[in-house]
Amino acid sequence: MSKQQIGVIGMAVMGRNLALNIESRGYTVSIYNRSKDKTDDVIAEHPDKKLVPYYSIKDFVDSLEKPRRVLIMVQAGKGTDAVIDELKPLLDKGDIIIDGGNAYFPDTIRRNTALSNEGYNFIGAGVSGGEEGALKGPSIMPGGQKEAYDLVAPIFEKIAANVDGEPCVTYIGSDGAGHYVKMVHNGIEYGDMQLIAESYSVLKHIGGLNNDELAQVFTEWNKGELDSYLIEITADIFRKKDQETGGYLVDVILDAAGNKGTGKWTSQNALDLGEPLSLITESVFARYISAIKTQRVAASHVLTGPKIEFTGDKAELIEKVRKALYMGKIISYAQGFAQLKSASDHYNWKLNYGEIAKIFRAGCIIRAQFLQKIMDAYEQNDEVVNLLLTPYFKQTVEAYQGSLRDIVTLAVQHGIPVPTFSAAIAYYDSYRAAVLPANLIQAQRDYFGAHTYQRTDKEGVFHTDWME
Amino acid sequence: MSKQQIGVIGMAVMGRNLALNIESRGYTVSIYNRSKDKTDDVIAEHPDKKLVPYYSIKDFVDSLEKPRRVLIMVQAGKGTDAVIDELKPLLDKGDIIIDGGNAYFPDTIRRNTALSNEGYNFIGAGVSGGEEGALKGPSIMPGGQKEAYDLVAPIFEKIAANVDGEPCVTYIGSDGAGHYVKMVHNGIEYGDMQLIAESYSVLKHIGGLNNDELAQVFTEWNKGELDSYLIEITADIFRKKDQETGGYLVDVILDAAGNKGTGKWTSQNALDLGEPLSLITESVFARYISAIKTQRVAASHVLTGPKIEFTGDKAELIEKVRKALYMGKIISYAQGFAQLKSASDHYNWKLNYGEIAKIFRAGCIIRAQFLQKIMDAYEQNDEVVNLLLTPYFKQTVEAYQGSLRDIVTLAVQHGIPVPTFSAAIAYYDSYRAAVLPANLIQAQRDYFGAHTYQRTDKEGVFHTDWME
Repeated sequence: MSKQQIGVIGMAVMGRNLALNIESRGYTVSIYNRSKDKTDDVIAEHPDKKLVPYYSIKDFVDSLEKPRRVLIMVQAGKGTDAVIDELKPLLDKGDIIIDGGNAYFPDTIRRNTALSNEGYNFIGAGVSGGEEGALKGPSIMPGGQKEAYDLVAPIFEKIAANVDGEPCVTYIGSDGAGHYVKMVHNGIEYGDMQLIAESYSVLKHIGGLNNDELAQVFTEWNKGELDSYLIEITADIFRKKDQETGGYLVDVILDAAGNKGTGKWTSQNALDLGEPLSLITESVFARYISAIKTQRVAASHVLTGPKIEFTGDKAELIEKVRKALYMGKIISYAQGFAQLKSASDHYNWKLNYGEIAKIFRAGCIIRAQFLQKIMDAYEQNDEVVNLLLTPYFKQTVEAYQGSLRDIVTLAVQHGIPVPTFSAAIAYYDSYRAAVLPANLIQAQRDYFGAHTYQRTDKEGVFHTDWME
Repeated sequence: MSKQQIGVIGMAVMGRNLALNIESRGYTVSIYNRSKDKTDDVIAEHPDKKLVPYYSIKDFVDSLEKPRRVLIMVQAGKGTDAVIDELKPLLDKGDIIIDGGNAYFPDTIRRNTALSNEGYNFIGAGVSGGEEGALKGPSIMPGGQKEAYDLVAPIFEKIAANVDGEPCVTYIGSDGAGHYVKMVHNGIEYGDMQLIAESYSVLKHIGGLNNDELAQVFTEWNKGELDSYLIEITADIFRKKDQETGGYLVDVILDAAGNKGTGKWTSQNALDLGEPLSLITESVFARYISAIKTQRVAASHVLTGPKIEFTGDKAELIEKVRKALYMGKIISYAQGFAQLKSASDHYNWKLNYGEIAKIFRAGCIIRAQFLQKIMDAYEQNDEVVNLLLTPYFKQTVEAYQGSLRDIVTLAVQHGIPVPTFSAAIAYYDSYRAAVLPANLIQAQRDYFGAHTYQRTDKEGVFHTDWME
């Protein structure tokens, strides 16, 4: 009996769709799920596909060509470890386990090391694009043994999204690099979404735009430099009617944002690496504060703010918000890519930033024209320490900073919270400041804790007895 | 031979000063240090003190009254574990180990649980106030077994700082509660320091104040509602002359702030708990961005900003900055105490917030008149979900918000970074917002990831096919 070319474990929607995607590219695929029912469902729904179901993990493993390629699509964390523990005794040295779930990158490093020590290969692959991406073409961020990845690459390159024929997948780096980059991708997604939410808030509450006007604005924006998936779907969202009330659906959706933890991980890692990832972190906090809706409603009856009286020009406001949003986005990516650089050094991953921007261009949630600009910047100089210092971004932020300053001012004066717009301008002004007031902080630390300080005029470490 | 009442392990400056402090209150103290020299130094420098040196840990343990009280003051982390491992075989059940170092609270939880399972008591005690505090009266935050704490309490109450005879120490809660509260104390300290640094920056760069004027401003502020240790030492700092250059010392201190990680831990824990601790987190990021001085200097030649032209009234500016600073401080403490509440629920610590504010009033770095207001608020209602909702703070932030908005505006328009001032007003406006734009975020998440949403008009969890 002939063997299958790859196996997929886990028939929840992501695993199922990836299996179907792989099959559609001409591969034979073994499938397995812990509970039989889900496997049967897939087969019943797709009788014409070359998916071969197995009901024991041993039969599943035996059904695969060697070296075996096993893609795990199960719940991140204990679920993944349980499947690996079950699989390992059945595999041969040199076989390749691929974890396509949303694993926390330190887990991927741990698993890669443990399996590698026993002679197995382990690829941690970030897969972005949601259900539809999984089925039709995701952006894939694989990390692990390079020689093992080479054996998987032909499949990944066929199932991935592509831009002008170039697949949105590339080898990211060793052990946890793939899941790390996926994590930062998700963090950036949080930032993008919060920047759009603040733009919406300013346009709605200060500019007085209704949903039709908002839909139109986002449709327009999507034709220019903001052209991206998230701007596109935002336009759709403002148009969507609620079948029950007949009004706009967005207006009856509860303003309490959930999260799956990847934004939080990105911020926590920034804090570990000493990276000032303020914009994404504010977007995580913005979700948290949105979630305490009951407290906010109670507080709204207690704490007052300024009245909103906007008499400016609406078209001008819209254009300023557009520029503020674009500059906010630039700052967020500058912070995110600076963190990638820091992580690359710290974990010894040798990340290729231009390639990362390149595979973000399609298949994933943050796909945008704008990523081409990042690719270009790294193509000119892969050693760039911060994107803000590259010609296109420098030129843009210098031109747009006035708008961002004005929108922050307008929002702050009208009592509309703009945490990420504010973080963006604070970062810009901090990053370009030759002198910050941290000399005072160092003086205070030396005063109360003898933590010492450095001087601007000579080398060395100094301590002063301040009370003398 | 008579036994000593308490033993101190670790004769670095904090351990030495605590030992001297304890001795000065009439207790006999055994001391021990891994390397003999430090012990000898202490004895040589203080021949008249009732400190009894031991050069083997066994002799040290044998020298103590039972149940033994052993205070460990060694390097946090592996150092602490190593000492515990050495001590344990020598101790009897019921003996009490006290870790007075800056331990990470999950380590304290782990140690408390492990030792408790073997019949030993373990107190994790946060000690604030630096070297001088340790010697003359720190603020102490002990957590662990209550019955064990009761056996240590008489000593702690004598060595702690006090306000009107009330000692700045109280039982905080079980296992890691003491070190947790110390961690949040330090996070708050980061926030206080950054708020002061931003005030300095605005007054210096926009208002054009020189160091003499700044010293005078902070001296004045210290007479009013900002009255606190950090404001007081800031005034001192602006007066301090540099012996080498003859100029002001603060002006030759490098603006690159260090950190010992406790602010970072506070932010990382906020992210885990789902708490929007934006102000302290921005202050951690501000230190990080200050630390990349070389990059900033390079960027200052590339990225431009607005010119500073301030023609307003200087006295008015100073008063607005004062109000902005006070409101920023209120927001920071509101966030910090909200996090304490969340942690108390999460870790089951039953924290007493009023008592915590009370012991912060002296001995520690964040000591301030202002803490009396927090004490008062919790005295009236210990169930308060957020300090902003209590009468004094509500009244103050409502009155001061205009100044904070104006200072953020002024700074943003002049290119002076004010990340924590900005975070403060964004939090205020978010917290009092009955409606935030997170409905759009939920719509987006449901659109691309089928993450579902709730509705404002009925119970349930909903999903829409947005592309229909």
